[in-house]
Amino acid sequence: MKKYTVAIITISDKGSKGEREDKSGPALRGMLMGAYEVNDIIIIPDEVNIIADTIKRFTDELRIDLIITTGGTGLGKRDVTPEATKLIIEKELPGFSEVMRIESYKITRQSVISRGICGTRGESIIINLPGSPKAATECLSFIVDTLPHALSKLKGDLTDCG
Amino acid sequence: MKKYTVAIITISDKGSKGEREDKSGPALRGMLMGAYEVNDIIIIPDEVNIIADTIKRFTDELRIDLIITTGGTGLGKRDVTPEATKLIIEKELPGFSEVMRIESYKITRQSVISRGICGTRGESIIINLPGSPKAATECLSFIVDTLPHALSKLKGDLTDCG
Amino acid sequence: MKKYTVAIITISDKGSKGEREDKSGPALRGMLMGAYEVNDIIIIPDEVNIIADTIKRFTDELRIDLIITTGGTGLGKRDVTPEATKLIIEKELPGFSEVMRIESYKITRQSVISRGICGTRGESIIINLPGSPKAATECLSFIVDTLPHALSKLKGDLTDCG
Repeated sequence: MKKYTVAIITISDKGSKGEREDKSGPALRGMLMGAYEVNDIIIIPDEVNIIADTIKRFTDELRIDLIITTGGTGLGKRDVTPEATKLIIEKELPGFSEVMRIESYKITRQSVISRGICGTRGESIIINLPGSPKAATECLSFIVDTLPHALSKLKGDLTDCG
Repeated sequence: MKKYTVAIITISDKGSKGEREDKSGPALRGMLMGAYEVNDIIIIPDEVNIIADTIKRFTDELRIDLIITTGGTGLGKRDVTPEATKLIIEKELPGFSEVMRIESYKITRQSVISRGICGTRGESIIINLPGSPKAATECLSFIVDTLPHALSKLKGDLTDCG
Repeated sequence: MKKYTVAIITISDKGSKGEREDKSGPALRGMLMGAYEVNDIIIIPDEVNIIADTIKRFTDELRIDLIITTGGTGLGKRDVTPEATKLIIEKELPGFSEVMRIESYKITRQSVISRGICGTRGESIIINLPGSPKAATECLSFIVDTLPHALSKLKGDLTDCG
């Protein structure tokens, strides 16, 4: 069976300038590489247009199935990942964001600060994760089992859900 | 005491053409018929305009208190129930949708895929439920106790909440 | 260390006319006065413009760090606090509202009715709480530990989150 493809985008001003080692991207790749064909990790700065254009390149040109972003979901002035994601998604998937925040809240109350959103564009799913390796991998763990089913529905599987 | 009225709308292309038996509508009716005066179940296709017009007929013309939809909340190309509902609600009720997804997630992780929304129009409450009989009845069970209180508040009960 | 400042706004037609004693405002002040410098409680009617202008005066002119509202989040015709808040926030903080509803739901199912929203304006955070003293203090208890961290991030703390 052909594996779904995934692109991981680390969104960090410092990371994009080489001033901070990207630990979240590799940690997420480690979680996903068994089930997905994982592209190179891309590190970009916290700029709305760059974020939106990078996601669109993965969805519209490269037809990547799953786009995972890490970083830029907080309250800092430079945190604009949700705003950039909102610009390019077609259908929002509120349940993914809700469950990641509510389940993370059981581990650390600060998780409610994340403003990340999730949604679809064409036949791709875009997921915003927080920036820290611990928070990003925890959040992904709450939805990772559901993503293949969601992708298969998005791509036209018409069988009834249980 | 006069019972509140409820209309159940099954939203399904196959169901509306008689190609699939509607199991969700009758299951929901079974849950609601003790406490509500339940109208006939209507089965309509996954078309934005038909869904929006059907809900509006129940709220604006027939003055039905509670409109329950089942189906069309997923990720398929034909799933447009949330989009249709958004067109006609006046106030969104985010808590109903959140709690249905979070509580269902404890039973099956796939529940986070549902994009259903809830809201008010005039003195009616509209609730989107997923399409499968199991998911629809589970979701309704998490909010069914709260609906009479919500309806009474919407219709002008000014006593303080506890 | 300088304490953050907080303003508490009780939103209630009856309260603003002196027809009902404000119990929520004082209860919230009691929870916050240890950690914050608490301003006088303001009681205003359920009017969109008055609510929006009052919040803006606290954020834009008085530079209050945290604005807590109580009341007007329900389904009554006069309940417009979320609509007023939406007019003036710049970034929404969905996680705060979600976790308050989901955690309160474990105590009383009626909590899902609250339509309260949370967000930022400039370097201030605005939190809508329900109107009853019990619900307002319960909801605040679920996020009160997180607010100083959120404020520090909003005001420019660039250290990494754990």
